Amino acid sequence: MLGVMDLQALLDDLAAEAAPFAAHGKVADYIPALAAVDPAHFGIALATMDGQLYGSGDWQTPFSIQSVSKAFSLALVLARDGESLWRRVGREPSGSAFNSLVQLEYEKGIPRNPFINAGALILIDRLLSLSGDSLGTLRTFLRAESGNANVDVDPEVAASEASHGHRNAALAHFMASCGNLGNPVETVLDHYFRQCSLTLSCGDLAKAGLFLANHGLRADGSRLLTRSEAKRINSVMLTCGTYDAAGDFAYRVGLPGKSGVGGGILAVLPERGILCVWSPALDPKGNSVAGVEALDRFTTRTGWSIF
Amino acid sequence: MLGVMDLQALLDDLAAEAAPFAAHGKVADYIPALAAVDPAHFGIALATMDGQLYGSGDWQTPFSIQSVSKAFSLALVLARDGESLWRRVGREPSGSAFNSLVQLEYEKGIPRNPFINAGALILIDRLLSLSGDSLGTLRTFLRAESGNANVDVDPEVAASEASHGHRNAALAHFMASCGNLGNPVETVLDHYFRQCSLTLSCGDLAKAGLFLANHGLRADGSRLLTRSEAKRINSVMLTCGTYDAAGDFAYRVGLPGKSGVGGGILAVLPERGILCVWSPALDPKGNSVAGVEALDRFTTRTGWSIF
Amino acid sequence: MLGVMDLQALLDDLAAEAAPFAAHGKVADYIPALAAVDPAHFGIALATMDGQLYGSGDWQTPFSIQSVSKAFSLALVLARDGESLWRRVGREPSGSAFNSLVQLEYEKGIPRNPFINAGALILIDRLLSLSGDSLGTLRTFLRAESGNANVDVDPEVAASEASHGHRNAALAHFMASCGNLGNPVETVLDHYFRQCSLTLSCGDLAKAGLFLANHGLRADGSRLLTRSEAKRINSVMLTCGTYDAAGDFAYRVGLPGKSGVGGGILAVLPERGILCVWSPALDPKGNSVAGVEALDRFTTRTGWSIF
Amino acid sequence: MLGVMDLQALLDDLAAEAAPFAAHGKVADYIPALAAVDPAHFGIALATMDGQLYGSGDWQTPFSIQSVSKAFSLALVLARDGESLWRRVGREPSGSAFNSLVQLEYEKGIPRNPFINAGALILIDRLLSLSGDSLGTLRTFLRAESGNANVDVDPEVAASEASHGHRNAALAHFMASCGNLGNPVETVLDHYFRQCSLTLSCGDLAKAGLFLANHGLRADGSRLLTRSEAKRINSVMLTCGTYDAAGDFAYRVGLPGKSGVGGGILAVLPERGILCVWSPALDPKGNSVAGVEALDRFTTRTGWSIF
Repeated sequence: MLGVMDLQALLDDLAAEAAPFAAHGKVADYIPALAAVDPAHFGIALATMDGQLYGSGDWQTPFSIQSVSKAFSLALVLARDGESLWRRVGREPSGSAFNSLVQLEYEKGIPRNPFINAGALILIDRLLSLSGDSLGTLRTFLRAESGNANVDVDPEVAASEASHGHRNAALAHFMASCGNLGNPVETVLDHYFRQCSLTLSCGDLAKAGLFLANHGLRADGSRLLTRSEAKRINSVMLTCGTYDAAGDFAYRVGLPGKSGVGGGILAVLPERGILCVWSPALDPKGNSVAGVEALDRFTTRTGWSIF
Repeated sequence: MLGVMDLQALLDDLAAEAAPFAAHGKVADYIPALAAVDPAHFGIALATMDGQLYGSGDWQTPFSIQSVSKAFSLALVLARDGESLWRRVGREPSGSAFNSLVQLEYEKGIPRNPFINAGALILIDRLLSLSGDSLGTLRTFLRAESGNANVDVDPEVAASEASHGHRNAALAHFMASCGNLGNPVETVLDHYFRQCSLTLSCGDLAKAGLFLANHGLRADGSRLLTRSEAKRINSVMLTCGTYDAAGDFAYRVGLPGKSGVGGGILAVLPERGILCVWSPALDPKGNSVAGVEALDRFTTRTGWSIF
Repeated sequence: MLGVMDLQALLDDLAAEAAPFAAHGKVADYIPALAAVDPAHFGIALATMDGQLYGSGDWQTPFSIQSVSKAFSLALVLARDGESLWRRVGREPSGSAFNSLVQLEYEKGIPRNPFINAGALILIDRLLSLSGDSLGTLRTFLRAESGNANVDVDPEVAASEASHGHRNAALAHFMASCGNLGNPVETVLDHYFRQCSLTLSCGDLAKAGLFLANHGLRADGSRLLTRSEAKRINSVMLTCGTYDAAGDFAYRVGLPGKSGVGGGILAVLPERGILCVWSPALDPKGNSVAGVEALDRFTTRTGWSIF
Repeated sequence: MLGVMDLQALLDDLAAEAAPFAAHGKVADYIPALAAVDPAHFGIALATMDGQLYGSGDWQTPFSIQSVSKAFSLALVLARDGESLWRRVGREPSGSAFNSLVQLEYEKGIPRNPFINAGALILIDRLLSLSGDSLGTLRTFLRAESGNANVDVDPEVAASEASHGHRNAALAHFMASCGNLGNPVETVLDHYFRQCSLTLSCGDLAKAGLFLANHGLRADGSRLLTRSEAKRINSVMLTCGTYDAAGDFAYRVGLPGKSGVGGGILAVLPERGILCVWSPALDPKGNSVAGVEALDRFTTRTGWSIF
């Protein structure tokens, strides 16, 4: 593995090289709270298996993790439900926009995978049934893994999400009409909007995700997932983690990754660590332009692609 | 025109001949309140321009008019808005199931026509904005035209609709997400579910619809619609009034018609009158089997198709 | 009925009023032979049941009738096959573009109706099986009804169609893959391209279509279709005859009609006659802009809508 | 790495354990030549980077490689065209059936990825333009890499493909209509049908694919692809290589793989070797049931998943 000094220098280089690519993207503007974020932010952090944490740029600045949270939801539900989860949600790439009602109708209320919005609603519905408090369970987990007890929801973003949430409400009601929702639509949506509004820094996120690189072991050494389950989450991230650009992301970056419209991306380096980038300007498919660029350069430079 | 005796005899014949076709259909079962209706009911009524009212079978028994109500909504909104209505809803046949989210997504929240569920929600939303009380305005109109002051909502059916209304909620939220809904989703849905639960008999409905055969003139001689507008509603009924079977209905019956999953169908005989049938058992596309059969035989026997 | 002088004056008025609307349209340009047509042409002709023929503008100039031919194909096949035809083609509005592969795939190779391209290919396939020569049978019929022995294919247009026919070839091969084509794909396409390239004037077309207004009786008094079959073709024209604008056409014009991308439209005035217009500039859905305008004004002026 | 004896024993074990799963599948029956294959065949072979070749069961029996050939086509075109290839074909999972016209229409003639049939036709079209002989170029390559000079087309299968090729003809004509085909449709289809009919054994295929595990180096040490290009082909195989089951395959097996309806699957073990299985009985999505089972067990046993 590259040495400590090399990794820090590499992150610094990537920050310098990739950040300007934000000029080719556009900050998410579907809610005012996200539209107001400064597109000039760029952060990158790497948490390694040996306990090191490297960072460059705004890597300690909390941001709205949005759909990156879905990777953690999946882990928490899979840890409890195991394979029976897949009766309620598929694990195939969606091949269309991440919030498509069309596909949901063709599939009769079974979302294609857990990372499109409909699928994430299923995860929340299930975690609600299992734990009684989906958001609380997830927040507790993120605090424990990141070591940051201040991880929390940004109430302004959550309110903004809720007041612009008709499309997610449509998805939830449709699944309810198909019998694929166990809790009240309003409850599921409330937890969904708050979960998307969790704020963490690149550093926090990289640490929180380490179990995915570490065969399912948590920071305290306890087991969240079996070795096989951890691998399987990575495979779902690779094929479905970056909306309708999963093929392109796998092609360019070659790592399992989960992105969010806040501009964050969490990428898994199996048995090595977690790399997390943040740059708010997005490409037309909803992924951070400078973030993907940085990851692309990282795997090219290190050769740490999984392929 | 056929004489009084002939018409009464004709309706009696049709009742005898068509009613048995109900055996080929199935009562709507998506809500308990409709599933409980006896499929053996058959009613037929004809209101003519000269003020006569003929009926046979259960023509005086009130039933849940469901989507037949949409023809009246359209008239009430078109009377107020005129052509500007068509900026918010199309007037093309849908070519797919009546409650499809797929089409709505492709059309970016503009329903294909006012008779699919999404389009009817737009009518209600508009009538709410125009009158403050969509259901009340419609009920007042139906009472006046039918001469039956007891026309009202069946509260049991309305409650049943509301508790099984996730799919309509999905449609409404989706349109709201596209900016095509002016009132709160909950309000629009409440008026929608109650409107579908209005109960009228074949006789009431036939009288209430006479303005469509009478160039837009109401029972009291006042004008609801221009001559041209009345014709145009008939054209929308012909091309879009019977779900995804409009082509088949036009082919077999040859009259503008609007059907409902309660088993009612209202058909317009331009310049002659309104024919209304009711038989609860439906074909797979949602139209009354015995009802369509009776209408088919009626136009074959009288030659009063519009083609 | 309006008198002779009135009708001629009306057509002259309509020609003067409607022709300028061509400025809002665009001549079909998918093949060079059609793109070269002068958009300034405007013709209108009315053939009445009492044997009169009125015309104004370029009503005696032959033009490429394109999909207007499909109304005649349908009549010729229905006359031979009767209701069994509907096992191979539907009669519902398509609700999407006239040459859509999407719909054909969802419907497993059964075209939605006989007037979309896929449906017309089925008609030709069937007429080939029934008569051995689909194009020849149709041409003979058109010559006899129009009284114009020179009705024929424009070979330049036919060659142009064939050399740009990949999309129709895709439709035909797809239906063949579903087992819904009895003759070789190449043969069906050859007859299709030539059929679309038939040239007739408004006057010829109006006379040729009279059987549709005359309960199925041909010019020589012999019966092509039963009274019921003639009505039924009119109903299919109303619901499906003008591509994805059938609802709008019914709304504005209120007559059964069949249009073609050559700019012609044939409209049926049941028991009165056939009105035919031609103006090459099309709206985005493929119908003649000035043609629809003229028909709209005609029914408004005469009140001869079917509604 | 596991030793020689271990690997041979492992393949023998997998053959014994996985072969019975064929009972849950069904041999492809869309052409008689494939339908006649005995479902009891099971072969597995592993070619390693150090030049060893292990095999068990029918690993030396040639079979119809069908779509497995597309992985080689992609390599041969990418080697010549580089990134410009992606202007004519995407690299996103399709999210629908492998021969869908629907998706191709929405994407305006640009196939979603090179492994659905439409995409493979583009590869052949391009290799025809580049080399003058797509099939010949591929066959020469396969012979050289496998060391088997007898690799060739099964003429009976090719004829069978051609006579049942309407659906592929529809795809090709549709892309031609969109301007995305440079050679005549008939030529492209001829090369496609023959390419699908190439027969190789598991042993041949495993050796022929080694360049994918070996960073793009051919058997003779020459370079076909850059290191980066080889990785990228593997990423496309992972996200798109097994029809609409790519997510499930990645989840269960965790290796880049390309399957064919002949029942073969080629899987890449980066930097280790190529594993090839063959069992003709398919699951509903078109992948070999016993083949996927064997691969699943292989990665579970060895831990050689890429995740």
